[in-house]
Amino acid sequence: MINRTGPDGLRSELVRQSNLAAILNTVHLAGALSRSDLVLRTGLSRSAVGALVGELAELDLVVETRSPSDGTPGRPSPNVKAHATRNVVLAMEVLVDSVAVAAVGLGGSLLLSVRSDRPRAHLPAHRTVQDLSDLARQITARLPADCGVFGVGVAVAGLVRRTDNMVLVAPNIGWHDVPLGSLLGEAMHLDVPISASNDADLGALAESRRGAAAGLDDVLYVSGEVGVGGGVISGGRAMSGSGGFAGEIGHIPVNTDGLLCKCGAMGCWETEIGEEALLRRCSKPPDGGRAAIQDVLEDAARGDRYVLQAMKEQGRWIGIGLAGLVNVLDPSTVVLGGLLERIYPYVIESIHDELQVRVMPAIREGVHVVPSALGVDAPLLGAAELAWEPILTDPAAANRWRVAANASQ
Amino acid sequence: MINRTGPDGLRSELVRQSNLAAILNTVHLAGALSRSDLVLRTGLSRSAVGALVGELAELDLVVETRSPSDGTPGRPSPNVKAHATRNVVLAMEVLVDSVAVAAVGLGGSLLLSVRSDRPRAHLPAHRTVQDLSDLARQITARLPADCGVFGVGVAVAGLVRRTDNMVLVAPNIGWHDVPLGSLLGEAMHLDVPISASNDADLGALAESRRGAAAGLDDVLYVSGEVGVGGGVISGGRAMSGSGGFAGEIGHIPVNTDGLLCKCGAMGCWETEIGEEALLRRCSKPPDGGRAAIQDVLEDAARGDRYVLQAMKEQGRWIGIGLAGLVNVLDPSTVVLGGLLERIYPYVIESIHDELQVRVMPAIREGVHVVPSALGVDAPLLGAAELAWEPILTDPAAANRWRVAANASQ
Repeated sequence: MINRTGPDGLRSELVRQSNLAAILNTVHLAGALSRSDLVLRTGLSRSAVGALVGELAELDLVVETRSPSDGTPGRPSPNVKAHATRNVVLAMEVLVDSVAVAAVGLGGSLLLSVRSDRPRAHLPAHRTVQDLSDLARQITARLPADCGVFGVGVAVAGLVRRTDNMVLVAPNIGWHDVPLGSLLGEAMHLDVPISASNDADLGALAESRRGAAAGLDDVLYVSGEVGVGGGVISGGRAMSGSGGFAGEIGHIPVNTDGLLCKCGAMGCWETEIGEEALLRRCSKPPDGGRAAIQDVLEDAARGDRYVLQAMKEQGRWIGIGLAGLVNVLDPSTVVLGGLLERIYPYVIESIHDELQVRVMPAIREGVHVVPSALGVDAPLLGAAELAWEPILTDPAAANRWRVAANASQ
Repeated sequence: MINRTGPDGLRSELVRQSNLAAILNTVHLAGALSRSDLVLRTGLSRSAVGALVGELAELDLVVETRSPSDGTPGRPSPNVKAHATRNVVLAMEVLVDSVAVAAVGLGGSLLLSVRSDRPRAHLPAHRTVQDLSDLARQITARLPADCGVFGVGVAVAGLVRRTDNMVLVAPNIGWHDVPLGSLLGEAMHLDVPISASNDADLGALAESRRGAAAGLDDVLYVSGEVGVGGGVISGGRAMSGSGGFAGEIGHIPVNTDGLLCKCGAMGCWETEIGEEALLRRCSKPPDGGRAAIQDVLEDAARGDRYVLQAMKEQGRWIGIGLAGLVNVLDPSTVVLGGLLERIYPYVIESIHDELQVRVMPAIREGVHVVPSALGVDAPLLGAAELAWEPILTDPAAANRWRVAANASQ
């Protein structure tokens, strides 16, 4: 349509696209809203909001529902909400010991999800891709017949080149130069765009959009599992760095006399605060995996003093690395995700002790350290946000992008 | 003028202001340019450029000069350049052992500058303010009678709250909660805006505008003297953090068994790479100051093996901290300033050795570590950029802001 218009038509077309996007983004992030709420939040006129909502409804992206009367007199205002069951993206996650696939509806609801164990042995990438593709098929088979899929977002615990969805290196998974985007495209037979990114970057995206740091401009998200990853929101934007690789916080040197890291260096933060460090401190086999971590958490909950002492030491090292990052980034909120969210109650006191002595007071007074609100789902929900990007930018293209969910069966 | 116009007039006034600013910013950063260059660089039409240059010339902000014939046939195109001697800002710097004041012309030329020693004893702030004010008077007295001053920018080796120019803490200077902006305003009797900021943030600004990282979007500037400060440009914007305090890289913990830092913590990067650490490694009194550093540099230049070995160890610690920062920020260029610029040739090899083992390969391949191009003047030139901001945003207000240089006499 843009091609058929002159310069003025082009401009008004861009304005319409931007207004449609404003309405859809607001509904996507804030949930069900009345038209009056939309007028307030977008600054658009009531009649413009009406026309735009009508257009989004015709595109099947939103539905208007009459909210049940709340007892106040007068006609209840209809609510506009994202049409979640009609519009989904597939969100995927590749962790060291599991893979997961979810269908996430427009508006951010996790409709369906499956997770499957992945042996920690370094599998060839095509095996993992096959697993993801199989799980995706299970998910799409359970979606309603009239449901459309818009894209696939993948969170990977490694360095991902965004331009071609190439996993350059994922030390804990054992991948080097894996063209994840194109491998998935071949395996899935679902003609939608695929985007991959670092799992912690996506966790940060999700937490800053709809989690523990919703709406904040300066956020550090730290996610620990076997490895430790980070995502930074700075001045309201994801900090990407010159090559898109910013946030490799697992490899800041914190203990020059420390242990050898999988990256080849000594004493990276990851060697002191990852899963293996915690198990080692609890005198468990460091390769005990999720089951061993579960034992440790149960021991801690029971008040086992040896485990609580180990947690305290773990917290001290979390605090040491965090102090450096907070001094550098001056975030208003640090969100601890993954394993760090699960051990939060047992480590937060020693984290604060370290921040107290190591962070400049003016910076320390401005920062809060909180557990992830989205928990284990944060990277998956971030992967969904990544997959929604084209539609949130240009909602009018919805019919062009939407692919029937059963197309891959 | 804005108040006298209706909505359409307002819009065209904003467009004119933005176009004037585009021309002035281009000339300010790129130096003398022909009108044709300006057409190419701004995307504005030739006639618009002509009118805007005319307006800037009337405001005395630019001059047009006929460039000497370069031997090619045809009439030489006139060059537009910033009118540096007619328009200046005062740039100031407060370091641990010196204060400096400079007159910096529009276009970035350092016209006049004076530096004066400051005893390392913790002087009360009003003494330093008096020194700055006296130096400023010396400088303005030597400016041409028709020269106008637009503002004062101050670089301070400490944490500065930008909203009210309050120095919250400057551990190495011994300041706490010093209202530097208002103290200077009272002492100077020069009715122009005063802005203060952290010296390393301003060094980063200067290097990314007209120094070793000119035009680059992702830059880390590291400046070492007694303390160590940093400035980060991320995605083309200065990273400020939630409170404006981002970049306190001197206090990342790198050596948990290390020395007590002036901030109260142990093993901050500053304790391993600051001036005192270098002197200690060279078996000189750590409080020897600039004279002792000068000796060390001369010894190194002569090839003194003991000093060169100390430099190597210094470089190792610079590299350890830098590795963490590069993993986190993924900059395309790291600029080493201050003391780090002066010792650059003796430390760069050990820095590279550490980056080689500690930085993720994909990130390492994208980063260059270079010495400051502006040297000791970087923070002063950055302070000037800070002071130019109002005029670069709204050049038409020049006559309103300009104050005669001799007004403070």
